[in-house]
Amino acid sequence: MLIPVILSGGAGTRLWPVSREGHPKPFMKLADGESLLQKTYIRAAGVAEGAEILTVTNRDYYFMSKDEFEQAGLSKTHSSVYLLEPMGRNTAPAVALAALHVAERYGADALMLVLAADHLIQDPIGFGQAVQQAASLARDNQLVTFGIVPTAPDTGFGYIEAGESIGPGQRVRRFVEKPNKEKAQEYLDAGNFLWNSGMFCFKAGTILDAMAAHAPAVDQASRECWVTLRDNRLEGSGILEIPTESFGQVPNISIDYAVMEHAENVAVIPARFGWSDIGSWTALSELVPPDQDNNRSAAHTVFVDSTNTFVQSEDRLVAAVGVDNLLIIDTPDALLVARSDKAQEVKQVVARLKTQDHDAYKLHRTVSRPWGTYTVLEVGAGFKIKRIEVRPRRALSLQMHHHRSEHWVVVSGIAKVTVGDEDVFVRANESTFIPAGRAHRLENPGMLDLVMIEVQSGEYLGEDDIVRFDDRYGRISGQAGSQG
Amino acid sequence: MLIPVILSGGAGTRLWPVSREGHPKPFMKLADGESLLQKTYIRAAGVAEGAEILTVTNRDYYFMSKDEFEQAGLSKTHSSVYLLEPMGRNTAPAVALAALHVAERYGADALMLVLAADHLIQDPIGFGQAVQQAASLARDNQLVTFGIVPTAPDTGFGYIEAGESIGPGQRVRRFVEKPNKEKAQEYLDAGNFLWNSGMFCFKAGTILDAMAAHAPAVDQASRECWVTLRDNRLEGSGILEIPTESFGQVPNISIDYAVMEHAENVAVIPARFGWSDIGSWTALSELVPPDQDNNRSAAHTVFVDSTNTFVQSEDRLVAAVGVDNLLIIDTPDALLVARSDKAQEVKQVVARLKTQDHDAYKLHRTVSRPWGTYTVLEVGAGFKIKRIEVRPRRALSLQMHHHRSEHWVVVSGIAKVTVGDEDVFVRANESTFIPAGRAHRLENPGMLDLVMIEVQSGEYLGEDDIVRFDDRYGRISGQAGSQG
Repeated sequence: MLIPVILSGGAGTRLWPVSREGHPKPFMKLADGESLLQKTYIRAAGVAEGAEILTVTNRDYYFMSKDEFEQAGLSKTHSSVYLLEPMGRNTAPAVALAALHVAERYGADALMLVLAADHLIQDPIGFGQAVQQAASLARDNQLVTFGIVPTAPDTGFGYIEAGESIGPGQRVRRFVEKPNKEKAQEYLDAGNFLWNSGMFCFKAGTILDAMAAHAPAVDQASRECWVTLRDNRLEGSGILEIPTESFGQVPNISIDYAVMEHAENVAVIPARFGWSDIGSWTALSELVPPDQDNNRSAAHTVFVDSTNTFVQSEDRLVAAVGVDNLLIIDTPDALLVARSDKAQEVKQVVARLKTQDHDAYKLHRTVSRPWGTYTVLEVGAGFKIKRIEVRPRRALSLQMHHHRSEHWVVVSGIAKVTVGDEDVFVRANESTFIPAGRAHRLENPGMLDLVMIEVQSGEYLGEDDIVRFDDRYGRISGQAGSQG
Repeated sequence: MLIPVILSGGAGTRLWPVSREGHPKPFMKLADGESLLQKTYIRAAGVAEGAEILTVTNRDYYFMSKDEFEQAGLSKTHSSVYLLEPMGRNTAPAVALAALHVAERYGADALMLVLAADHLIQDPIGFGQAVQQAASLARDNQLVTFGIVPTAPDTGFGYIEAGESIGPGQRVRRFVEKPNKEKAQEYLDAGNFLWNSGMFCFKAGTILDAMAAHAPAVDQASRECWVTLRDNRLEGSGILEIPTESFGQVPNISIDYAVMEHAENVAVIPARFGWSDIGSWTALSELVPPDQDNNRSAAHTVFVDSTNTFVQSEDRLVAAVGVDNLLIIDTPDALLVARSDKAQEVKQVVARLKTQDHDAYKLHRTVSRPWGTYTVLEVGAGFKIKRIEVRPRRALSLQMHHHRSEHWVVVSGIAKVTVGDEDVFVRANESTFIPAGRAHRLENPGMLDLVMIEVQSGEYLGEDDIVRFDDRYGRISGQAGSQG
């Protein structure tokens, strides 16, 4: 048994404006159309022994994560389980609860492979070999980390000092914090320092024992949390919802601090499998091949007299004239222009937007909902236009708006529309009208995505003009909230 | 009599992406919401003696120019006449035909004040005084130019060397071409050199005599053109349509080369009225006040660690991180990022787009039509969404599409929709449906703008799927073309 445990957190504020609070880094799509999370699922499925893939993430990202799993094409071959956090408590509590789940379900000897959802690994064969090596050490009760063989004196990572050999790996002599430039060069020159990747492999029993020995507070609080979770879980749902109150009592601490830095039985597999943690736009830009002026473009770009510049854009045309060393990142509602060597400072933009309470730090123009997505195409005086996409077999809540009426034109798929007591099926190229004050529900009864255009009219068009009567996704009845 | 003659040409390729071939520089709106052409109309009306304001422009810009005149609020007090060119032939033929029209209508002694449609003049009182001075010299049979007192050794303008006094102005000693930096400094130091603004004042008779004396070929060809024009014009329409064939025979030459550089009776009024020819984004950026880091923004911008940067955006949020000395110009479909001192090179982007035949050199996302505008909001698989705005009392052609059906939702105003033999009135918040293959016409019978959302569905959604049966704006019947 080897159960991949995917830790999917991390806002990725340095990757704004593509990464947003409501659409964080794991959901970012790369040039090939796959998100980092999808790639992680595919990578995990390639090394899993057993059917289960466990995702630990915030409950707000449950539906989005599930969509990614399905889009990765794994629904038929693997089962997906979600351990849902009500808040972030760092990695130690996440790993502890995952271990309790794995131990209960598959036994204390089952192996866990802990992966981050926002890493990129470009050599899957090398990755598979490293996992095999790690698994052999883990079966021998080692806590195994993956140490990336450094290619530069990077100051953005913690380092692992490797010692004498143990099987296919090496003993860990010590973990060291992110160094300054000088120290980093020293580590690189020494030859036995590796980047701490934050990926691990161990038996569920081994990590639980280590937790009890080195972080008894985490162990204790996690076990209390687990008891409540276990008593309330719905078997077969694939959802393990961590209870808010007891999770709030678990110390907020990383697995490195809590366990790895103290345990004796820690080993490292030196790894060279094209790993990147996609920490900034600079890292992402390097995935695009450069032209003869060292410009890189994932867009329709006209470069005039420009060098060393990276451009990413969804569909807008970008022209760069006489510029050097820039990052130009364009999204439907926000644009970033940054000097390449200031890529780290992008997080300051997010901080600034947050203090201004500007939507662009958390929401994209396309917003994810349990049932699909909606995209505001235009807002004008007295009207708002949205494209609404509903996944097969999903439905919006039964709802009513006081101030706006809605015209719906179906452009593909089929919609089942309930207005008052009546059900109507609206097909591609047909339309229907929902008057203000009338209860209605929209549902996709078909097997394909439903795409429709909504034209709202009214004097007030705020997202909070919604009264929900019934909701399949457990959103509170009658609560004012946003779309659907 | 003093008739303002506004020469409205010039693509303004250095002001891409706001200026486009189909929406050139005179139509660019400044921060106060007024276009350069509107400002020119208002300025012209302030000094006109008589009701008429004459615009010389390409016939493609007739409806747009008329809209600007109306939006300038001058329809009640002034009459607008349009001398429409089938192609550009530089300024000499334009001035000659304008003079023939003015001489015929108001006599050879009537004064013409020739203005460019894309200049900005920030001191209207100073402008009015300069016009008075020019008029007094023009009444005395002088060909009067306006020479801007230079503030820097600019190499982007031609210069005028001023000589001895004549009335409120000075004799022109000579015109000189755009100089190099050294020469420009020499001219500035000399003190009697002025920038050639391209604005003039003269009697219609004086310029026609000078044309006959110094540019007989232009004079001859223009008069032939005029005869055809006069025989075919529709009295009272306000339109003087220059015939294509004979206009093609007129030499393509500027009024400076053809006449001014050769005539003896040329005077100049030295002018200081806050003149700018808005030659590049650098000039436009200077209209926006700087913050403490010398950043200028006409948008919602977050500046982090940035200096000397200008941002213009319609509604997108822009973040600039660690940059210096940039121009960031954002429009709905195209983005420009340029180093400030390379602002002149922006025209190379337009040239490049033209060779690629990319729409963005000529069209905006919002496209002007004789009846109003349309804006493509989104194009997806099998659907296209537009916002259509129809001006009061205007109508689209009676038309038919083979491959697409259209849903129309009116969001404000009232629409008269003819489908087959039936007329329906569609009001705000109502919708109608036009099946493929059915002849239809859209009309705004009301007094306010009609705004509606069109959702097109079909397998083929190209703008060329249109068969026109009848068109109020003289667009050829049955011809395939674009929207409406």
